[in-house]
Amino acid sequence: MAKISSPTETEWCIESLIAVFQKYAGKDGYNYTLSKTEFLSFMNTELPAFKKNQKDPGVLDHMMKKLDTNSDGHCTQAEFLNLIGGLAMACHHSFLKAVPSRKQT
Amino acid sequence: MAKISSPTETEWCIESLIAVFQKYAGKDGYNYTLSKTEFLSFMNTELPAFKKNQKDPGVLDHMMKKLDTNSDGHCTQAEFLNLIGGLAMACHHSFLKAVPSRKQT
Repeated sequence: MAKISSPTETEWCIESLIAVFQKYAGKDGYNYTLSKTEFLSFMNTELPAFKKNQKDPGVLDHMMKKLDTNSDGHCTQAEFLNLIGGLAMACHHSFLKAVPSRKQT
Repeated sequence: MAKISSPTETEWCIESLIAVFQKYAGKDGYNYTLSKTEFLSFMNTELPAFKKNQKDPGVLDHMMKKLDTNSDGHCTQAEFLNLIGGLAMACHHSFLKAVPSRKQT
């Protein structure tokens, strides 16, 4: 039997992001997209610190509108991954501001 | 002292993707981007199964060229997150083909 090695941390992250999208997208039976209810459920449960740190109470509504680039009221896997990428970028920039690079040129 | 709750799996993934980029981007001292050497090191170490399953031996060179949207010979955090998103999308589509949805309309 072929040996299957353990996934690396990055492989595990990719699997986890697919699984979490499918978990929430499958709540209403149609598991290709997140409805607004599913999106809110995902944000409140999986990224609770995000909402807690926002001053605008309508931030999640605005995000859903912005993510839903084709305006069909649903968030696709690609739109979802844009969100994750956007949040990671924001964190990355905060870290870079907080900890100046050793060499920036 | 304020209580700090443990991160959720999604929060942990975002942190991990930032950390892995910074780990490889920092190898040559300029930690804002991945050079081609750093990109190859990342792919070979963190996503070894990807290259193993590709027939084209030049796949990583082609990927670096495609990712480097501003053609500066480096891969930024945004370009890196596009890669992760693209790989996750490819996996997601494979899973959907392998396991038909319960309801597709």
